[in-house]
Amino acid sequence: MKLLRYGAPGAEKPGLLDQDGNIRDLSSVIGDVAGEALSDENIATLRGLDVASLPLVEGSPRLGACVGHVGKFICIGLNYADHAAEAGMALPEEPVIFFKATSAICGPNDDVEIPRTSVKSDWEVELGVVIGKHTKYVSKEEALDHVAGYCVVNDLSERDFQLHRSGQWVKGKSCDTFGPIGPWLVTRDEVADPQNLAMYLEVNGHRYQDGSTKTMHFDVATVISHLSQFMSLQPGDVISTGTPPGVGMGQNPETYLKPGDTMELGIEGLGVQVQTVVAG
Amino acid sequence: MKLLRYGAPGAEKPGLLDQDGNIRDLSSVIGDVAGEALSDENIATLRGLDVASLPLVEGSPRLGACVGHVGKFICIGLNYADHAAEAGMALPEEPVIFFKATSAICGPNDDVEIPRTSVKSDWEVELGVVIGKHTKYVSKEEALDHVAGYCVVNDLSERDFQLHRSGQWVKGKSCDTFGPIGPWLVTRDEVADPQNLAMYLEVNGHRYQDGSTKTMHFDVATVISHLSQFMSLQPGDVISTGTPPGVGMGQNPETYLKPGDTMELGIEGLGVQVQTVVAG
Repeated sequence: MKLLRYGAPGAEKPGLLDQDGNIRDLSSVIGDVAGEALSDENIATLRGLDVASLPLVEGSPRLGACVGHVGKFICIGLNYADHAAEAGMALPEEPVIFFKATSAICGPNDDVEIPRTSVKSDWEVELGVVIGKHTKYVSKEEALDHVAGYCVVNDLSERDFQLHRSGQWVKGKSCDTFGPIGPWLVTRDEVADPQNLAMYLEVNGHRYQDGSTKTMHFDVATVISHLSQFMSLQPGDVISTGTPPGVGMGQNPETYLKPGDTMELGIEGLGVQVQTVVAG
Repeated sequence: MKLLRYGAPGAEKPGLLDQDGNIRDLSSVIGDVAGEALSDENIATLRGLDVASLPLVEGSPRLGACVGHVGKFICIGLNYADHAAEAGMALPEEPVIFFKATSAICGPNDDVEIPRTSVKSDWEVELGVVIGKHTKYVSKEEALDHVAGYCVVNDLSERDFQLHRSGQWVKGKSCDTFGPIGPWLVTRDEVADPQNLAMYLEVNGHRYQDGSTKTMHFDVATVISHLSQFMSLQPGDVISTGTPPGVGMGQNPETYLKPGDTMELGIEGLGVQVQTVVAG
């Protein structure tokens, strides 16, 4: 099942994508694709619906982030060996955790704003994991049962802010619009193996990232179990699991986003995002 | 005006502290001490209320964090020169920003849980700043107009997780219960000078921290203006502005929290927190 949110920013309604690629309105069934609506029980209820009887949404509305009211937007750094190498950083012994601001979250096809003083705005296609139930001190074996589903995330990153503005990466990771999430949340039953998904990112039609979750250093189950030793996770928390090689900082010469650029990124089975870059 | 939230965790009601130190119920006036209720207009409305006519809350209910639905829990690192020295770190050229998980937030007098594998759980009394309106690219001169009020924060920190578990401080800052906030949000009109507030923290009656916001390296206005260049701030965001000297890591020998300990901390005019330390 592909769950989504559509409509104006801040006023998104819940929906699902039907077999024909049309949006069906879920407003009469759930308040939002968020929080407790992501539990196994509630997703089972949605799965039991007669999709054809749900209202068809006309036209092509804007898509919001595919999950609402995200409590924590957690990222895993340097989680692909080749990307760590291109970033000139050592592969970590345990997952590196950082947060993006939840105010950075936007729809999958919304414009991405370059912050006013940015000089090095960069892209990162990542597998997003949406938590479905309360998670604390879970083992690696239990971990995937706590996942509601998966989605595409673009972990936009201002490298100068991240690395050269007095420490802690959050400064370069949290700018408004630096967190497109979606187009949809694909429930975990439809993702046979989260560790075998092709992923790519193109800027102006040039393919910079062309990888697979196969080369992830710490897999999704390990990441969830590890996180849960340090903090509890709640339904609707999003974990972005790191990026494969091909970011702008890794090019020779380094290549960064500028107004007018177009990004297209996607992950096998999870849909595609397209963003236009604008001045902030 | 001293705004607060009282009742069971997750079911707190809004209230205010009257002149006699009693809680008055604000449920009939605002939904929560959160978000848009923190605007200048809404706080002016609250100030116009006849407090004596508001329902008196009987007994001594639990206090929750004094602000609800916190979107971002932002911290400023190494923001007191003496604390940077005791931590063995250089004083930064610009504010160091990191996030605590919003799931770490708890009431001012709730038990603080030591995570299962913790060896170095530490305390930090800090001045908390609660944002009252949308804030983006604001100048230092405008910044304090964006503050709804101030509160006490204990920025609990697991030093081993923070510094020795593969990078980024968030890992040691985000454990459940590591963010007591309150007891109340004191509106900014009642805080004559946020840069001249005495602050202290005691463990088991021993005073470890005894400082003043006077020795803050980057003042509140500078911090808000700086943050707003990197991300927008929303009503209800909380900024914890750093800690003065006297943390456990700075003792000789280093001293950390253990189950059974009691912490008491306070800031002039903003109230006192008391927490019992328990095993997680």
